[in-house]
Amino acid sequence: MRLRLTPREDSFYDMFADSANNLVTGARLLVELISDGADRAAIAEKLRACEHAGDEATHAIMRRLNETFITPFDREDIYQLASSIDDVMDEMEEAADLVVLYKIEEFPKGVIHMVEVLERAAELTAEAMPRLRSMKELNEYWIEINRLENQGDQVYRKLLAHLFGGEYDTLTVLKLKEVIDRLEDAADAFEKVANIVETIAVKES
Amino acid sequence: MRLRLTPREDSFYDMFADSANNLVTGARLLVELISDGADRAAIAEKLRACEHAGDEATHAIMRRLNETFITPFDREDIYQLASSIDDVMDEMEEAADLVVLYKIEEFPKGVIHMVEVLERAAELTAEAMPRLRSMKELNEYWIEINRLENQGDQVYRKLLAHLFGGEYDTLTVLKLKEVIDRLEDAADAFEKVANIVETIAVKES
Amino acid sequence: MRLRLTPREDSFYDMFADSANNLVTGARLLVELISDGADRAAIAEKLRACEHAGDEATHAIMRRLNETFITPFDREDIYQLASSIDDVMDEMEEAADLVVLYKIEEFPKGVIHMVEVLERAAELTAEAMPRLRSMKELNEYWIEINRLENQGDQVYRKLLAHLFGGEYDTLTVLKLKEVIDRLEDAADAFEKVANIVETIAVKES
Repeated sequence: MRLRLTPREDSFYDMFADSANNLVTGARLLVELISDGADRAAIAEKLRACEHAGDEATHAIMRRLNETFITPFDREDIYQLASSIDDVMDEMEEAADLVVLYKIEEFPKGVIHMVEVLERAAELTAEAMPRLRSMKELNEYWIEINRLENQGDQVYRKLLAHLFGGEYDTLTVLKLKEVIDRLEDAADAFEKVANIVETIAVKES
Repeated sequence: MRLRLTPREDSFYDMFADSANNLVTGARLLVELISDGADRAAIAEKLRACEHAGDEATHAIMRRLNETFITPFDREDIYQLASSIDDVMDEMEEAADLVVLYKIEEFPKGVIHMVEVLERAAELTAEAMPRLRSMKELNEYWIEINRLENQGDQVYRKLLAHLFGGEYDTLTVLKLKEVIDRLEDAADAFEKVANIVETIAVKES
Repeated sequence: MRLRLTPREDSFYDMFADSANNLVTGARLLVELISDGADRAAIAEKLRACEHAGDEATHAIMRRLNETFITPFDREDIYQLASSIDDVMDEMEEAADLVVLYKIEEFPKGVIHMVEVLERAAELTAEAMPRLRSMKELNEYWIEINRLENQGDQVYRKLLAHLFGGEYDTLTVLKLKEVIDRLEDAADAFEKVANIVETIAVKES
């Protein structure tokens, strides 16, 4: 007779899926936030609520981890994966908060492009989480996230060159740079999530 | 008969307590450093000595790790914990060094607030280290460090908005920003220490 | 009878050596890039090719990892080591790309010094990789990398003070700072590689 995973342990997969779906909500709020004529303060407030929901979800995973004897994969990896998903949301929320704090009203085109990259990365991450159950078809997810991250990187560098090109006054350069640095950090954080999933798959292989 | 931990192995707890106490000393020097009329060069020099003492303490832990067969918790976690405590000190020392290099004479109020957050985080960390022995009551430590980190984050963001508000000349903005970024990194590094303690407790649970 | 490591598994050592040798090539291209009268666009292009070669080498290690049953050391550590070597190259390539994007023509002396530190760190890393086989004489490597990183840090801080000293216009300050921040990140990434090697040695000890 083989021990079956109990439903409780199995619930980690659903919890990660929820956390990743929350990133999709967050990324879509970022897209809204930088649209022309958006009510930026209201959207940033929604993103803050989203970040709190993410914190709750992370703590729920940690509590479940403490109550569970047999976990579907290494305890530490569950911990790392939950933390890394949390980090993505933190960066996105910080970007939104800075937009409001700095009262930024206009965004160079590259910013829109960067946020779309984040939206796509969030969707890919949310689609990948249920596949942790079978450890199948995770390869495409890493490859696509890495491709996206490279693309985001190109956009980011061109945006820096544009910002420093002399068109903007210095304080505007500094404020926009703070925001796009957070967006770039969010893209890196998505790659980190994918790397942790890769490590888990490598261990389980 | 059950093998007892030898005194040698047990000494890791004391070594971590020493390292964390060193962070308290460092954080208090930072508070002094930004006080009105402080002899900044002399205090930064003391912080450098403090950072060297921290390096020594870290290396002592690493040497002990290499000599010890049975460790109280995972070798890698001992390594990670020692490194992360070291990282906090590096950020604090770098902040102090930049204050002197840039000859910064006046600090916005938020900087004082950020440094007080670091002082409190150092005290909490020093109080938590001895509790690694029993793995008891570590929960409050994480929660409080996370609360502090969030508070520090709010102060940091308001400080950025203040810095970029037009009151300061650009070079002053850039110099102050370098310093407060190091303080923010130190706050993040304290959170990293707490996360590693959390991982250790999760594993041992 | 004791199972012998098959030649295939043993090949990880050679693969890490190749990856590290690629860092030496990259660092030397950086030295060229900042020389007076260099064809910067052409050299940055070579660095990009170098970075692609590094990506290929990293993926080859990951594929080998997935095919190999018994690895010379922990699967995760192989993964971490490969990733961290990859990170160094990414930072160096990004620095070169920004130099071209920003059309930077002149470099303060400290930049040359920083790049020489990177070249030396790359050489030390390449020399250390073959020693993973015996786990012998790795101590000197960490100590020397840490010494170099400290030296690089001093150069970096003096360079910041110089940049913010009032000699340069603000946009030039910002552009140069972006580049030297990437060089500093590359130095930190070399230290990270050394720390992972140290963790591996600690585990295997």
